[in-house]
Amino acid sequence: MTNDQWNCKSINELLKAIENSKISLETIIDSFYSRIEQCDPDIQAWQHLISKKEYLNQYYSNEDFYKNSVLKGLPFAVKDVIDTAGIETRMGSKIHDNRVPSMDAAVVIAIKKAGGILMGKTVTTEFAFFKSGKTQNPHDPKRTPGGSSSGSAAAIAAFMTPFALGTQTAASVIRPAAYCGCVAYVASHAEFSLRNIQPLAQSLDSLGMFSNDFFDLILMRRIIQLRSDLQAKQNVKENLRIGVYSGDQLGEIEPEMQHAIKGFMSRVQRESITFVYLPEDIDIKALADHHYKIMAFEVARNLQYEFHTGLMDEYITELIHAGLNMAHADYLQHLQSVEKIKTDYVNWMNKASIDFTIAPAAPGIAPLGLEKTGQPFMSRPWQVMGLPVTTFPMAHQQNMPLGIQLVGKFHQDDELLEHSDYLYKLSQSKG
Amino acid sequence: MTNDQWNCKSINELLKAIENSKISLETIIDSFYSRIEQCDPDIQAWQHLISKKEYLNQYYSNEDFYKNSVLKGLPFAVKDVIDTAGIETRMGSKIHDNRVPSMDAAVVIAIKKAGGILMGKTVTTEFAFFKSGKTQNPHDPKRTPGGSSSGSAAAIAAFMTPFALGTQTAASVIRPAAYCGCVAYVASHAEFSLRNIQPLAQSLDSLGMFSNDFFDLILMRRIIQLRSDLQAKQNVKENLRIGVYSGDQLGEIEPEMQHAIKGFMSRVQRESITFVYLPEDIDIKALADHHYKIMAFEVARNLQYEFHTGLMDEYITELIHAGLNMAHADYLQHLQSVEKIKTDYVNWMNKASIDFTIAPAAPGIAPLGLEKTGQPFMSRPWQVMGLPVTTFPMAHQQNMPLGIQLVGKFHQDDELLEHSDYLYKLSQSKG
Repeated sequence: MTNDQWNCKSINELLKAIENSKISLETIIDSFYSRIEQCDPDIQAWQHLISKKEYLNQYYSNEDFYKNSVLKGLPFAVKDVIDTAGIETRMGSKIHDNRVPSMDAAVVIAIKKAGGILMGKTVTTEFAFFKSGKTQNPHDPKRTPGGSSSGSAAAIAAFMTPFALGTQTAASVIRPAAYCGCVAYVASHAEFSLRNIQPLAQSLDSLGMFSNDFFDLILMRRIIQLRSDLQAKQNVKENLRIGVYSGDQLGEIEPEMQHAIKGFMSRVQRESITFVYLPEDIDIKALADHHYKIMAFEVARNLQYEFHTGLMDEYITELIHAGLNMAHADYLQHLQSVEKIKTDYVNWMNKASIDFTIAPAAPGIAPLGLEKTGQPFMSRPWQVMGLPVTTFPMAHQQNMPLGIQLVGKFHQDDELLEHSDYLYKLSQSKG
Repeated sequence: MTNDQWNCKSINELLKAIENSKISLETIIDSFYSRIEQCDPDIQAWQHLISKKEYLNQYYSNEDFYKNSVLKGLPFAVKDVIDTAGIETRMGSKIHDNRVPSMDAAVVIAIKKAGGILMGKTVTTEFAFFKSGKTQNPHDPKRTPGGSSSGSAAAIAAFMTPFALGTQTAASVIRPAAYCGCVAYVASHAEFSLRNIQPLAQSLDSLGMFSNDFFDLILMRRIIQLRSDLQAKQNVKENLRIGVYSGDQLGEIEPEMQHAIKGFMSRVQRESITFVYLPEDIDIKALADHHYKIMAFEVARNLQYEFHTGLMDEYITELIHAGLNMAHADYLQHLQSVEKIKTDYVNWMNKASIDFTIAPAAPGIAPLGLEKTGQPFMSRPWQVMGLPVTTFPMAHQQNMPLGIQLVGKFHQDDELLEHSDYLYKLSQSKG
């Protein structure tokens, strides 16, 4: 194996190689930094990158701790809305130039305590909303990487780091992961401490994670939750009943996405898997509208500080005006309507014994142009219900990845991640 | 009316007096500061107090703005876990000595934009948990003011300021308000932006407010929500059906509290009010245990930064150890059990057409001693269900107030506050 390939290995593979003395941490770090030097001048995934020298100094300053730790000093990256002690956290906005937090976000503390070393901050759109950062799609420099966790998705898809944190309020994890072609996961609402992560909308914000392997996500999720059971049980059910949501109601699903989903379903089709289409009377489409309204109302109240500076971009300013013009009673009505549809959806899941639902992760491949980050509508319904979701690349079109989305049950994130791993591998083995 | 009495008026009365040119803001401010000089050397409600000179400088520096504003430059106070730009926010802990936020909490921005002037920060227990601050009960220096929003409750009950913000994770608003004898309100979970309020437990933390008048709370709540409909409708239903929870299952309810609740019910009893006892098969008692477990689990993950300093007090260290020792599956089980009991409770409310439920706000009067802040069990069940609650003094015993608690429907906080105002006045007119 050449040096260059270590950066493409999963965290679990790297840890095993270190434990078996097949490789030193220094060689692994070399591999990631070489990859960054090679491709980041174009992709520009990083808002702030720790130098290799700083990184290794950090490692050597506490080598015993790292050698005895779970993560052995492996790197991780953090979206620039997540506070990092001593390193600027700008939320992609000039309003917060030179904002240097004194405390790490709780999730960052957990990874550091497990022996992870922060490699840097990844680019976010302004306030995790629509205004693009500088990042390009690793597969095509003329296409958006998606947003808002643009840098995290691009850094993972380009194998510049093995794990990255993001956040999702609308589609900010699933869309960039699907456009860049990596694996990602958004947690059930309130599963993680969001302390010292800059908020956008309290009813919607969730923690997200990017990697190229679901078992890595299971490991990292459990590390962040300070758990002692760090390894997956691999106890996927014998018979899976999978809900299918075509996404057609929500807007323009492109023909290649429709084709990819059908292809995926036929590739994984076998006796132990039953597909069940979501009944049309469950009003998933309405959820997308409720999501937008709830987001507008809450963002308007969360971002007053920035709003009063007059320095926000036009997209988010428009959202805040929409939120300020909404009556409180209407906001409550939207929350209530979501609860009703969620009850319908959960009742159907239970009645039809559905394990999880699949849907397109985005309308199609990453669109051309870097000014916009693509449509978020495929994520809004699940996000407003607070459900955990994952994505992985299921097909390619014009050399660009097409992502599928898996929607799990509330607070059953472990099961969703294991099912995702199973289906991802199944789809690859048949591809 | 003498100068000294202005500090006992409600915000709505003060605004009316200012509008009718009956009084200047300076006279009102004099009245509050005189009261503080007179009683705060004993009570010690303030962690940080703006001087009268600073306060008036602030007012004069922008007099036109304040004169044309909703709140006309009236004062408000903020619990020391709520960030205030340029003023230290210590969360009652030496770990955060000299922590000076650069941004106000979103709720503070909203009050300032409406013309409120921050008078100071009120004492909190360490990290809004059990370790007492320096504050005494205004009614008896040998008794606890309750916690964790000790300073806010004492400052309001002693008429040192007309409005104060607090937070509640277990009983941190209702208990101190009941022990100090003022009016208070805890919002439905996630009704307000908690941006830049230091978190304790994400599933439980709620914003709270203290004053001596429910119409003031209605006004301030709407100001913080950036609403245009600032005044209450006063549309209390003609026939009220009120649930009654005795609290007996939860622990030692003292005889004077049992007596006070019965006295209250008979004082407000009339044809238009029906009391309905909560059925015993709704397991409210179990909720108190689920609350404690969920709090322990989440606090352990939120306060990792402080935990690793080794400088936290014994109470919260013990809680964090309990949380760290809890299996993730058990945590999820507690969340799920809460949902089941909440469904039972809500179904009963709907079936029996209950408007709100009354319960003791605390086991009895404020206990003797300043080291502990009293039992929180009367609040845990409602807090873990995320329901809005209010309290007001309904009786006195040994010259100490006894508080009743009203529990509203989720996100129907406006209705709860109007019902609370109605019942409070009714109980006073009969007393």
